[in-house]
Amino acid sequence: MGCALVASGAALAAGPLSPIYGVALPDGYRKWALVAPAQEAAPLNELRAVLGNDIAIKAYEAGSQPFPDGTVLVKLAWKHVQSPEFEPASIPGAATTVQVMVKDSKRYAATGGWGFGRFINGQPADAAQHQTCYACHQAKVQNHDLVFTRFAP
Amino acid sequence: MGCALVASGAALAAGPLSPIYGVALPDGYRKWALVAPAQEAAPLNELRAVLGNDIAIKAYEAGSQPFPDGTVLVKLAWKHVQSPEFEPASIPGAATTVQVMVKDSKRYAATGGWGFGRFINGQPADAAQHQTCYACHQAKVQNHDLVFTRFAP
Repeated sequence: MGCALVASGAALAAGPLSPIYGVALPDGYRKWALVAPAQEAAPLNELRAVLGNDIAIKAYEAGSQPFPDGTVLVKLAWKHVQSPEFEPASIPGAATTVQVMVKDSKRYAATGGWGFGRFINGQPADAAQHQTCYACHQAKVQNHDLVFTRFAP
Repeated sequence: MGCALVASGAALAAGPLSPIYGVALPDGYRKWALVAPAQEAAPLNELRAVLGNDIAIKAYEAGSQPFPDGTVLVKLAWKHVQSPEFEPASIPGAATTVQVMVKDSKRYAATGGWGFGRFINGQPADAAQHQTCYACHQAKVQNHDLVFTRFAP
């Protein structure tokens, strides 16, 4: 199936893999379409943006959950800093984490069909951090196929 | 020139045109690549995201200003609301404005090469609002070809 191939490609792309899930940073994700921005309060103080691959965006547009195999979501995060040029605005500072969710209902059957990866400077965070992903998503957004972010209109 | 054709296409796309500049909402902009998110403080209390067409993104990647003719930037804005699912996060609420900048150095020679459009529910704002665009951009970001938003790493 085309979708499954895309999912494998994303999960198995060249580059370091997350512990537990074996998820890599997908190729070319920085130019994917925007799902939505967000802000995270202290202590993180971050601006964030979730991007999705074509399969993800089509699923959002159709309003169809669960997301199909092959869905990949990437959340970029930056420190939240004051704009030096426009007083009311705060803007991205240094990049902090890049977090990936890959849907593969067979490979990740034990975690709701999702594999997770959290990267800092391109390197995966440790296993302890990855052990927190599924429990939190399951506890808070089980009604939206474990995905927090909605498509911003 | 291909770039000029793209610029004309964006500026003259079907749909209502902004006063003064005659800028339309470009086709398909919602799936353009992300330049950067931002937050705007009270009284607006908005989350924002600037998207760019391919010409814009290439110019950002090359770090080359002035932006070439054909560059189109679109800023989406939403009310900034508390996430009902994750306490530290705030997320997009209702959409507010969509703002467009189109580079066409001949057509918009009198305003630094940029045409501006501000839309609310798909309809252009009035001329008085459009008279404020250029003066503010010129006063604050003349050193960055009148563009506030930098590419978020």
